[in-house]
Amino acid sequence: MIEQRSNAPRRFDTTISIEPNGALADLRAGTEDNWNAAICHRFVDELFAGTIDPAVMRTYLIQDYQFFESFLSLLGSCVAHADRLEAKLRFGRRLGLLEADEDRYFITAFADVGVPGSVYMRARPNPATSELLTEMTRAVDSASYPDLLIVLVVAEWLYLDWGERDEPLPKDLVHARWIELHRGEDFRRWTQFLVDELERVFPDCAAARARLRSTWERIVALELEFFSLAYL
Amino acid sequence: MIEQRSNAPRRFDTTISIEPNGALADLRAGTEDNWNAAICHRFVDELFAGTIDPAVMRTYLIQDYQFFESFLSLLGSCVAHADRLEAKLRFGRRLGLLEADEDRYFITAFADVGVPGSVYMRARPNPATSELLTEMTRAVDSASYPDLLIVLVVAEWLYLDWGERDEPLPKDLVHARWIELHRGEDFRRWTQFLVDELERVFPDCAAARARLRSTWERIVALELEFFSLAYL
Repeated sequence: MIEQRSNAPRRFDTTISIEPNGALADLRAGTEDNWNAAICHRFVDELFAGTIDPAVMRTYLIQDYQFFESFLSLLGSCVAHADRLEAKLRFGRRLGLLEADEDRYFITAFADVGVPGSVYMRARPNPATSELLTEMTRAVDSASYPDLLIVLVVAEWLYLDWGERDEPLPKDLVHARWIELHRGEDFRRWTQFLVDELERVFPDCAAARARLRSTWERIVALELEFFSLAYL
Repeated sequence: MIEQRSNAPRRFDTTISIEPNGALADLRAGTEDNWNAAICHRFVDELFAGTIDPAVMRTYLIQDYQFFESFLSLLGSCVAHADRLEAKLRFGRRLGLLEADEDRYFITAFADVGVPGSVYMRARPNPATSELLTEMTRAVDSASYPDLLIVLVVAEWLYLDWGERDEPLPKDLVHARWIELHRGEDFRRWTQFLVDELERVFPDCAAARARLRSTWERIVALELEFFSLAYL
């Protein structure tokens, strides 16, 4: 018998509850390998260790900031196209927080790692960024709540799962604050809300289900690629 | 010479600045009569006097609350389709405030005037409400920033203009708080932002200008009718 323990893929539990036989369980199971590869990516390992090369961190943050405007558009579209008042209000609150927390993180982090506004405001998206932006634009143009949610759920849930890796925060604040934005009770509850909404409105129609599954798979793969591209 | 002073229409200045020869000046000038008739409507007179019949106030609030969800959708669509990051963030902030201020006003006011949730959540829209809801849905479906703004500008600017009538607040809190929501520096600056945005993105194309003008005229007329229908 071959001892595989050292080569066994590391796995991390999620704190998000899902219906055992629901659409989300199925989507997660179908992309488990890429999902775990992202959670265990070298970028995340080095993020918790506080050892990401400054050039890599600059590249990563510049690329990630490219999503900020499109992410606002996604949330705004959810306010517009969610089918319940309570959900619209929830997305509205998140929009207010996002400006306060996430925009401030980026502005501070760019100052800390020495990236001037002239650079991050006019950066060219790398291929993964570019494809993810296309997915976001497609979701906004769809004006369809499930199509909007599927993009948000991957983005937030995958980030929550690595953010909740049970490891201490590194000393470097640019590293530590990025982790803190993706863990904690508020972010967990926000992600749970998104997951619950997607489960609730997941369509019955086979064609729509296939379209959403295909989007889910593309986005999980792109999130993994996005980490890797920061090292090129 | 006939003395006309007593019959002359009352007029109120606006605190909103507009470009003297811009699109907004033109739209306002073309609907001056209906605009002033709304600002000077019996409903507004009685609102400042604190003398609206409770049955009229109930009807008015129940009908106005019908807009709340669609209004959120309009703001969400502006987050999605505004052409600048700063504007998206501004709409995002407003969404946060709207939940805190306006929703709370309605919930409190309905309790004060004795309208249970089972009534205001399931009320049937009157004809003006129904047409205004159609205009809002059309704007959201357009995914066009100028088409979204034109609905918002009429709604907010007209309400600011009556809210800023230079008269003391009445003692009754349901009356007074409704006035306070539509005056003051924050609401004025928000309205100025909307007006400036519409001026900035107003299209050059003649067909688009005609469409927006026609929407503007319909909505001003509907706002006037909306006040009157509370008395029927």
